Amino acid sequence: MSLPKYKIINDPVYGFITIDHPLLFKVIEHPYYQRLRRIQQMALASLVYPGAVHTRLHHSLGAYHLMCNALIQLKSKGISITPEEELGAKLATLLHDVGHGPFSHALETTLMSVVKHEDLSLWIMEYMNDELDGQLQTAIDIFKNTYTKSFLHQLVSGQLDVDRMDYLARDSFFTGVSEGVIGYDRIIKMLTVHNGELVVEEKGLHSVEKFLLSRRIMYWQVYLHKTVLAAEKMLVNIMRRAQQLIHNGIELSVPSKALQYFLTKKLQRNDIQAALPIFCTLDDVDVMCAIKAWENHTDLILQHLCRGLLNRNLYKIHLQNEPFENDILQQKSMEYATKLNVDGSDVHYFAFTGEAINTLYNLHEERITILFKDGSTKDISEVNNTLVHKTFANPVKKFYICTLK
Amino acid sequence: MSLPKYKIINDPVYGFITIDHPLLFKVIEHPYYQRLRRIQQMALASLVYPGAVHTRLHHSLGAYHLMCNALIQLKSKGISITPEEELGAKLATLLHDVGHGPFSHALETTLMSVVKHEDLSLWIMEYMNDELDGQLQTAIDIFKNTYTKSFLHQLVSGQLDVDRMDYLARDSFFTGVSEGVIGYDRIIKMLTVHNGELVVEEKGLHSVEKFLLSRRIMYWQVYLHKTVLAAEKMLVNIMRRAQQLIHNGIELSVPSKALQYFLTKKLQRNDIQAALPIFCTLDDVDVMCAIKAWENHTDLILQHLCRGLLNRNLYKIHLQNEPFENDILQQKSMEYATKLNVDGSDVHYFAFTGEAINTLYNLHEERITILFKDGSTKDISEVNNTLVHKTFANPVKKFYICTLK
Amino acid sequence: MSLPKYKIINDPVYGFITIDHPLLFKVIEHPYYQRLRRIQQMALASLVYPGAVHTRLHHSLGAYHLMCNALIQLKSKGISITPEEELGAKLATLLHDVGHGPFSHALETTLMSVVKHEDLSLWIMEYMNDELDGQLQTAIDIFKNTYTKSFLHQLVSGQLDVDRMDYLARDSFFTGVSEGVIGYDRIIKMLTVHNGELVVEEKGLHSVEKFLLSRRIMYWQVYLHKTVLAAEKMLVNIMRRAQQLIHNGIELSVPSKALQYFLTKKLQRNDIQAALPIFCTLDDVDVMCAIKAWENHTDLILQHLCRGLLNRNLYKIHLQNEPFENDILQQKSMEYATKLNVDGSDVHYFAFTGEAINTLYNLHEERITILFKDGSTKDISEVNNTLVHKTFANPVKKFYICTLK
Amino acid sequence: MSLPKYKIINDPVYGFITIDHPLLFKVIEHPYYQRLRRIQQMALASLVYPGAVHTRLHHSLGAYHLMCNALIQLKSKGISITPEEELGAKLATLLHDVGHGPFSHALETTLMSVVKHEDLSLWIMEYMNDELDGQLQTAIDIFKNTYTKSFLHQLVSGQLDVDRMDYLARDSFFTGVSEGVIGYDRIIKMLTVHNGELVVEEKGLHSVEKFLLSRRIMYWQVYLHKTVLAAEKMLVNIMRRAQQLIHNGIELSVPSKALQYFLTKKLQRNDIQAALPIFCTLDDVDVMCAIKAWENHTDLILQHLCRGLLNRNLYKIHLQNEPFENDILQQKSMEYATKLNVDGSDVHYFAFTGEAINTLYNLHEERITILFKDGSTKDISEVNNTLVHKTFANPVKKFYICTLK
Repeated sequence: MSLPKYKIINDPVYGFITIDHPLLFKVIEHPYYQRLRRIQQMALASLVYPGAVHTRLHHSLGAYHLMCNALIQLKSKGISITPEEELGAKLATLLHDVGHGPFSHALETTLMSVVKHEDLSLWIMEYMNDELDGQLQTAIDIFKNTYTKSFLHQLVSGQLDVDRMDYLARDSFFTGVSEGVIGYDRIIKMLTVHNGELVVEEKGLHSVEKFLLSRRIMYWQVYLHKTVLAAEKMLVNIMRRAQQLIHNGIELSVPSKALQYFLTKKLQRNDIQAALPIFCTLDDVDVMCAIKAWENHTDLILQHLCRGLLNRNLYKIHLQNEPFENDILQQKSMEYATKLNVDGSDVHYFAFTGEAINTLYNLHEERITILFKDGSTKDISEVNNTLVHKTFANPVKKFYICTLK
Repeated sequence: MSLPKYKIINDPVYGFITIDHPLLFKVIEHPYYQRLRRIQQMALASLVYPGAVHTRLHHSLGAYHLMCNALIQLKSKGISITPEEELGAKLATLLHDVGHGPFSHALETTLMSVVKHEDLSLWIMEYMNDELDGQLQTAIDIFKNTYTKSFLHQLVSGQLDVDRMDYLARDSFFTGVSEGVIGYDRIIKMLTVHNGELVVEEKGLHSVEKFLLSRRIMYWQVYLHKTVLAAEKMLVNIMRRAQQLIHNGIELSVPSKALQYFLTKKLQRNDIQAALPIFCTLDDVDVMCAIKAWENHTDLILQHLCRGLLNRNLYKIHLQNEPFENDILQQKSMEYATKLNVDGSDVHYFAFTGEAINTLYNLHEERITILFKDGSTKDISEVNNTLVHKTFANPVKKFYICTLK
Repeated sequence: MSLPKYKIINDPVYGFITIDHPLLFKVIEHPYYQRLRRIQQMALASLVYPGAVHTRLHHSLGAYHLMCNALIQLKSKGISITPEEELGAKLATLLHDVGHGPFSHALETTLMSVVKHEDLSLWIMEYMNDELDGQLQTAIDIFKNTYTKSFLHQLVSGQLDVDRMDYLARDSFFTGVSEGVIGYDRIIKMLTVHNGELVVEEKGLHSVEKFLLSRRIMYWQVYLHKTVLAAEKMLVNIMRRAQQLIHNGIELSVPSKALQYFLTKKLQRNDIQAALPIFCTLDDVDVMCAIKAWENHTDLILQHLCRGLLNRNLYKIHLQNEPFENDILQQKSMEYATKLNVDGSDVHYFAFTGEAINTLYNLHEERITILFKDGSTKDISEVNNTLVHKTFANPVKKFYICTLK
Repeated sequence: MSLPKYKIINDPVYGFITIDHPLLFKVIEHPYYQRLRRIQQMALASLVYPGAVHTRLHHSLGAYHLMCNALIQLKSKGISITPEEELGAKLATLLHDVGHGPFSHALETTLMSVVKHEDLSLWIMEYMNDELDGQLQTAIDIFKNTYTKSFLHQLVSGQLDVDRMDYLARDSFFTGVSEGVIGYDRIIKMLTVHNGELVVEEKGLHSVEKFLLSRRIMYWQVYLHKTVLAAEKMLVNIMRRAQQLIHNGIELSVPSKALQYFLTKKLQRNDIQAALPIFCTLDDVDVMCAIKAWENHTDLILQHLCRGLLNRNLYKIHLQNEPFENDILQQKSMEYATKLNVDGSDVHYFAFTGEAINTLYNLHEERITILFKDGSTKDISEVNNTLVHKTFANPVKKFYICTLK
């Protein structure tokens, strides 16, 4: 079969995305990649922002598009990048999220608590690499940051990478939260490489500043929106209750075999690689279908939580800057225990506290380096007169309490 | 519980949508309405346009928003509309699509072949009206076009209604097809009522013309895009094969009880109303979950179709202006019968022909009337110098043949 | 002085425009090019669309940007284009409008009636070419269509050139007329070269169709908007009256020497080249400053027209499909002659008729050729099922009458 | 003459602006208001951002549109606003900038140094009020903040007024600087009145934060962009040199009588009101026409500056956080004095220093008050966890040196 020379995909965010290499086609056509169509990028945020139903597949195509642009820029500035490295960086970007499970971050701690999605992405890439006779090796090296030109890894995964640029641009587009709009065009135009590291030219300073602040605003207004938090907690509790019922030997039909596998087994890190092919059949559909089946289960806790999530009857949530007094939780718990006739040890499904954290700029991880016209460089947090000071590098914490409505 | 006075919803298309009446809240919070979150507006179009994953719920909120704007306009021009009529028109718009089943039009002919979705919408409204002590009566009268002020019905459902305006605006937004962008703002500003009928002021002529042409372009470029057609045919064939297997007594596990019900029963029009509560639990999740389960079924036809849809390995489709010679289909069919060892009577799952139709402007249905400054009116197809002539009212037909890749 | 390697310019329409060759800088920095900052692209359209104040300079930068994109596309499809040809095509685009005079088309017939702006552009390019030691020669050859690769000329100036694409995109952007939005991105992606001619791939058919229709809508809704017409007629009449007064020896101070020159001299085609340096100092400012000076002139006709234009007190204009009866004009003329005590031979400044013409697609000029997958080509007007038929190639004419308010 | 009932104006930023009261028409049609068409909102910023050629008229229409929306919001929340107050607030917004002179702020210190444009706006409103038999009285009271409901004044002129919201939205739109985009829709939805003062509901906190930061970014990236600064200094120096030459009795033809008046007279504050009718004929055209005339003046300083501005050959400018050493300026000055044979006392036209100041949030002026759900209020600078701290209220100062290229 002769593959088409190139293919263009309409994207409401960037206009068009061009795919122009047979290996990119093969990867995109792979069932493991197509699975990302069935995983929503923003999990349950669409319960608050109805437009936010875009998928991991769309996001990774978008990040790939920004990577293409960034590579064109860097090459036009004389940075040496071979065609193989270019393809590697594009493939690494396409596949950077291939290890995400259903509902992205929301279920990371429940279904796959022993492994981070980045590790899963790597393992799946390695699996595909075998299938493709090693053609993904450069991509894998870049992804793992073992490739010599570290700026390529920094483009894939860093404080100012194409992943973050795309998700901020895409998430603000689909939510309609104009406060999150970033000038990705300008940032990319200002990228360059200095002493082997990715840096931003001085003229891009305000755009980077804006990028960091948009991220901050998107966290508070969208990602950590209290109703979104409440919905994700409800989803997590549904999975936990299902695991508990199975563990206790209560009959629970799970419509998807893959989901049943992950709910039943207590996988250790060593078991995961063997379970990868099953993991790669798992997506949002399996989880939602189970929840739809369970809304009539005899276990009243499971039933209540499932109906709540399906019909958008979520927890009541309250946020504040200080931790909640233990009394309040205690009191609510007793109230439910009595009123709903729930066992005291199960009342945490209906009343619980927790904390939400937002870091603007992580001083200890990758840094954003500004390159000045005189050739000197500074970390953005040290540039005079920016809004990003060391104090902003401290995580901001909020405390929440969730209860039944 | 005291309901909030008003609520604003972020919408990437219009900015903000305001909900400002308790009855609107109640309807939106109803599980039958919330179900629309799980039905994609454009069914499988996202296989071509990855951004097109927006939902029926989002579309009906959008149409509601345009209705709000249209009512404000008409009132500002002195058209008499009572608060009750206003609320009725808004409710009718919110609920106009509540009768859509999974994958919208794609499965209308398979799962619910005896009833149109408009009838289902009406029946569900009537059901909800009972629950709400008759508060939806005006909405129902407007929807059925039995209400005296027929312009209200024309706003809900006509050649230039808020439904069409929203789906064109929304679908071009989410697909990124800029050719489909319409000037809904301007059209709405130009609406008025003349002799009891909805008309467009002369100054809006070009915007209406553009609206009709955008619709035409969206049909050919998106709704009837050949890959979208191929995917929808595959989905329909999956459901047909499943029905056939069940009918033949082949064991087939259907993860969703509601889907099983509709696949198994041969419902007549009279049975439907009784089946409404089950219908109202059915959505895209049920169908996708079944397809995921069936991709390993022993029936090779079902297996092949399910894997094709999940992994975007669709039919090859060819379109032309004339019908296909019977020979071509015949030949392909025999080829598959031999190669795949498929029964001759089943080979139509792998090779078949059909037609796609697009009507720009339906002369026989509702008309678009232009109001001139001198007080005279004309149907748009009779206005001198427009692109919309009677010839365009003829449906344009294309013929397709689908085969395996 | 070392020139910067590249420069990016913020453009609200396309995001960023990149200038990346020293010769491009030199041309942009030239006073003849900078003059285009002081000529509004849409002349007096801002009297109706207040945002439409963008300049010829901005438009030609935009057309240059689209040319850059088109060249990248063609090269990526294997079309051979040398760096010199690339630079030539870019320069020809940058300079294609450098011969426009004040208020663009509006005053073409008054101040420079013997030469078209395209000829002026060419002569100015040749003048600059001398200054630049022949570095503009390829650009000039492409512009004149004497260069062997005629597709380059077609990109600069044809039925589907970067000039038209930019002015439609830019004019709809700045007017806010969403009906005019075109999918320039997609059209450019679909361009290719076949037998040495610029053609559009079949998949771009709908976008081209949309492009032609947008142009039609922009003509009726914007370029030939009746108030815009009225304003332009008023401007033309102001210049004519000034010429007449000067010719009649009435004292008239003209604040700008350049404008005085062109109002006074009766230039023949042969005189123009000598007058080029003066022409190249003339812009909107000269004309507006004169009009501001003349609003207190003792000639009541001139005074009235100048005040009308400055304070947006324009002619009343009426359009219809048939020519106006001579009686109506006659009657109005006599009315004014009496009421305003104006000489009968001057009454045409206050009451006159004329015609406005709009051609959708010019069959006799350059054609738009569609390339089908099977390698065949067709003129768009011959493609089955498009809206562009030969009938649309006929100009559509409207008749107007202008009178005082 | 019967005025139209309403008129809609296309605006690329907001879609449509509706004018719906005869008095609004009268004011808009007034020559004093129409003059604002000929004053660019961003003065010389278009030398860097070519799209930024929008006018004061367009800005004040935009601010008026936001005022309309804000009033609708407040009324929908039960705030009592009479029709007269509504009209007054709209008129005050329309006219808030009617006192701007040519090139807005750039020439404020040269041509009209003794009066601020706000005072001129007020005096012109009072003048028009006489003409309109007192119909502008409420507007004037609101503008002067003598009207009882002070929130109306705060909407017209405060830390978060429709003026600022429009200029940020409009200026980022026309420059294409996406970093400046603000969520004006959301801010307006969140406005309310508490104890008679304009406040923002808690849910609008992030949008306000974003608004303040966008303003900051627009200042550094656009308003105080070094090339824009350089151009404005050149314009100011041209006017100063012209004044000096006139004062020294050097012959200097000024094409506009109004400009000649203001260049020649040394007006005191008391003289201004008498000079208002002349001021109201002055706009950008007068200034640009003079500069075009002077580019061939025998005074080499004037000639050089005028040519520089017309051909975009501007000062070289350097910015830094500390004041420049006197030596550097001294040295440059001597260099020019020798090389250009310029008198030592005139060398400041070619080499000079100065400072640019940007205040994010002015603690001492109007404040932005946040209203919490519990009914309490706080100034935004005191809200926990915002980026706007008291430290940001301190002005940020940069120092510049301008020299010849």
